[in-house]
Amino acid sequence: MSLKEYTFDGSRKLDLEKLPTNSKKDDVDKEKIIRKTEENLAKMQELQDRLYADGREGVIIVLQAMDAAGKDSTIKHVMGGFNPQGVEVHSFKQPSADELAHDFLWRLNKCIPRRGYIAIFNRSYYEDVLVVQVHEMNKGYHIAERVIGQPTEQFFQKRYRHIRNYEEYLYENGYRIVKIFLNVSKEKQKERFLERLDTPAKIWKFSGSDLKERALWGEYQKAYEKTINETATEVNPWYVLPADQKWYTRYLVSEAIVRTLEDIDPQYPEMPAEEKAKLGEYREALIKD
Amino acid sequence: MSLKEYTFDGSRKLDLEKLPTNSKKDDVDKEKIIRKTEENLAKMQELQDRLYADGREGVIIVLQAMDAAGKDSTIKHVMGGFNPQGVEVHSFKQPSADELAHDFLWRLNKCIPRRGYIAIFNRSYYEDVLVVQVHEMNKGYHIAERVIGQPTEQFFQKRYRHIRNYEEYLYENGYRIVKIFLNVSKEKQKERFLERLDTPAKIWKFSGSDLKERALWGEYQKAYEKTINETATEVNPWYVLPADQKWYTRYLVSEAIVRTLEDIDPQYPEMPAEEKAKLGEYREALIKD
Repeated sequence: MSLKEYTFDGSRKLDLEKLPTNSKKDDVDKEKIIRKTEENLAKMQELQDRLYADGREGVIIVLQAMDAAGKDSTIKHVMGGFNPQGVEVHSFKQPSADELAHDFLWRLNKCIPRRGYIAIFNRSYYEDVLVVQVHEMNKGYHIAERVIGQPTEQFFQKRYRHIRNYEEYLYENGYRIVKIFLNVSKEKQKERFLERLDTPAKIWKFSGSDLKERALWGEYQKAYEKTINETATEVNPWYVLPADQKWYTRYLVSEAIVRTLEDIDPQYPEMPAEEKAKLGEYREALIKD
Repeated sequence: MSLKEYTFDGSRKLDLEKLPTNSKKDDVDKEKIIRKTEENLAKMQELQDRLYADGREGVIIVLQAMDAAGKDSTIKHVMGGFNPQGVEVHSFKQPSADELAHDFLWRLNKCIPRRGYIAIFNRSYYEDVLVVQVHEMNKGYHIAERVIGQPTEQFFQKRYRHIRNYEEYLYENGYRIVKIFLNVSKEKQKERFLERLDTPAKIWKFSGSDLKERALWGEYQKAYEKTINETATEVNPWYVLPADQKWYTRYLVSEAIVRTLEDIDPQYPEMPAEEKAKLGEYREALIKD
């Protein structure tokens, strides 16, 4: 029932079919979980304050999921507790012409935060091995034949290596990447889509193309499983979190974030000794002012 | 006497002391070399035009050297022949506070050109393993202890790996990197510094700190040799070019660029068949207009 079961760091393979999308197997107490989540949100605030003041590590939270798995609501209800000064959210939509004319991680790079900051990616560069792989969009790219002419399998194996190397590089340059896959069931997606259709304040989130993507559910599951297995590493693990119950998802997301921040263990900067020695002087000057 | 002697692709070690800084050993005819350079400049123009129209590969030219080795004059006299539409020059000066708060390749990434374009880097991300290594600037960086706390050797070995991986990634995403080290002798630098001091139009290029860096000549040579050996690969080789005679340097630089562009072999896009079929129609409409 701990986060560990849902953590993939490359030491074991993910079998997406076998991983629960709800809390049943974990046999948890909902009230307790909600209380724990609140405690976590308070911890996140305090740790973010230290992270910002410290400025020696940056955090990137990657949120990936099928539609209606709860990405937006996770950002609102879990990350909403952060101080906006020090947090930035980036949504990775369809790439622009300018982005397509560059290497595929170029648009990611523009979103790397300063150290001390937290960046939240609502979808991410992982789309370049997910939606692109499922729809074989790479075949239409305007790149040298030596790049797109190679077999599809090889093309994406290289992209996996590019991502692994780049994430390792970021880790070695003072960043932590919290990679979260919100693992929703096909049944729950149907239920939430129907709810969207019936709710005026939610219907804008629905589009006909959502059903086309839903029809490719199996292909997406395969692409996610493969992608996670290829890119889960000790320093940059994946969290594959059950997403059928929002209260449970939020708890697990908050756990993953708190653990990362606790592992960083950010500290308020110490005042240099010569400054410290002058504090009395400063105080006096202010009083006389 | 060919470019090959000065090309390092990882298959043999560079020994900087043994590599000539002038044309003596190559026994070339100056007039002939100057004529060949002119031919190369014409080829470069034609190939750049195709590269731009084609848009499937981008080119990054990295220029590294000690002061007064001829970086600026190479850009002016060799790259000056390019059509400015499609070329951009980036100078990598001391990093800003914002750049220092990010991973060290972040500022490089902002300078990656669109495919079809040529970017020229006057100094580059290689400064992060050259000047930073010689002066051990990394010790003053505001990054997590796990990053800067490690032994210096290990810190830079990682940076070499980061650069190798990143350059390989760029190659695999439709880019060519032409890495040039202008290999000037210490005597020639002295001569050019003295010339700067004596020439009103050149004196602005000189500063007292140039002599401080000159005093570290041996350390820089060591850092360059190590850096080139660690980052020379088959797909992203280094060109270590004699830089004591500008006419010879320019020839070799133009050779390196022409070979890269010829290897890309860019093609003007073919008009789609349906458009082609309508050309007569278009012509008629224009005449009647």
